[in-house]
Amino acid sequence: MTIVMHDLAGADPALRFSPYCWRTRMALAHKGLMVETIPWRFTEKDALAFSGQGRVPVIRDGDRVVSDSWAIAEYLEDRDPDRPSLFGGATGLAHARFVNAWADGVMMGGIARLIVRDLLDVVAPRDQAYFRESREARFGMTLEQVQAGRETRVAEFRASLLPVRVVLGKQAWLGGETPSYADYIMFGSLQWPRCASRFELLEADDPVARWRERMLDLFDGLGRKAKTA
Amino acid sequence: MTIVMHDLAGADPALRFSPYCWRTRMALAHKGLMVETIPWRFTEKDALAFSGQGRVPVIRDGDRVVSDSWAIAEYLEDRDPDRPSLFGGATGLAHARFVNAWADGVMMGGIARLIVRDLLDVVAPRDQAYFRESREARFGMTLEQVQAGRETRVAEFRASLLPVRVVLGKQAWLGGETPSYADYIMFGSLQWPRCASRFELLEADDPVARWRERMLDLFDGLGRKAKTA
Repeated sequence: MTIVMHDLAGADPALRFSPYCWRTRMALAHKGLMVETIPWRFTEKDALAFSGQGRVPVIRDGDRVVSDSWAIAEYLEDRDPDRPSLFGGATGLAHARFVNAWADGVMMGGIARLIVRDLLDVVAPRDQAYFRESREARFGMTLEQVQAGRETRVAEFRASLLPVRVVLGKQAWLGGETPSYADYIMFGSLQWPRCASRFELLEADDPVARWRERMLDLFDGLGRKAKTA
Repeated sequence: MTIVMHDLAGADPALRFSPYCWRTRMALAHKGLMVETIPWRFTEKDALAFSGQGRVPVIRDGDRVVSDSWAIAEYLEDRDPDRPSLFGGATGLAHARFVNAWADGVMMGGIARLIVRDLLDVVAPRDQAYFRESREARFGMTLEQVQAGRETRVAEFRASLLPVRVVLGKQAWLGGETPSYADYIMFGSLQWPRCASRFELLEADDPVARWRERMLDLFDGLGRKAKTA
């Protein structure tokens, strides 16, 4: 049975740039599961009412509804334990939580401060006022002010990726010899700026950029085929 | 057979404060292995010549010599696969590398900037000149300058522990339902300031501090019995 997923879309319905939805897309592909995505915009809270909350990703799997990218990854692992594992067991899952917490608590904020004004140019017209207002409230300044000076500040962001770079100096994937959900957490986070902005966050010779190239090739180029701004 | 470990000691040979040696002590205890520690000082490079390098921890296990805390953890896991696992399999190990890289690349530097001058007061007299010179070269300023203002800067360090705090809000240990090497990485790092300095890095009601209390109780209070400055 095909899983249905609500996926954040831009003014162009083909533009899919949610970092959390990308984590889920990759996790579904890892499990070899078919997915049908439904484009969703920030202001369409009603369309998610069935899930009891207002954010994507949300998946519907027959009668089951699961929201939140981490909860979905756990759900998929339990659903199909005999398909390739996302976590490699209970300890692998426990350790992946740290990767997830670091990505959400450090990396995502770092990316937002470099591209948040660009996002305004790709969100649907009906989402623009909501997007500006909610994000400016969060940052306590205008989107333009948040993004200002990124050409110099990007060096700081690149430096913050040190732990990722160190790991990729030791092994091909964050998951070791094969990609795991840890790879999808980081990759999903990086698909956000890659799809929604033209500002390049990574230097081409960065091991993180070279790993991202390999990530883009996975699953018949699922990530690479994605529409970009 | 008892494993022998060279362990950094202070002027007081009972004061053991190396964050990397603590990771190894905890990993050995997790595997239920006996260890005999040999106090070692920074300037005793000759005493480690047998290991082909100049840093601790170094363990000698019969004819085998292994240095570097991460390499030792991998060695112990391979040596006794039937004893409690440190990593929970290949993916757990791969994910733990990220925890290790984050601790080494972010957390350790954050701790050093809060206590490096205090360390000078506990190292052996013969190590003091070496310690001051090598660390001042690394930081490009005096130890006193590095440590200055820590009463206000400690807030920044506490904030940097967010990913640890988030994970401990979801599960009892970084390893999930039981401690894993990820716990020993973090705990070892925190034993460094706890043993070598009287400056308290954690607020008592921080979930990280509460987890540290539980870590201190493991293995008959191995960490709690440690001598402090």
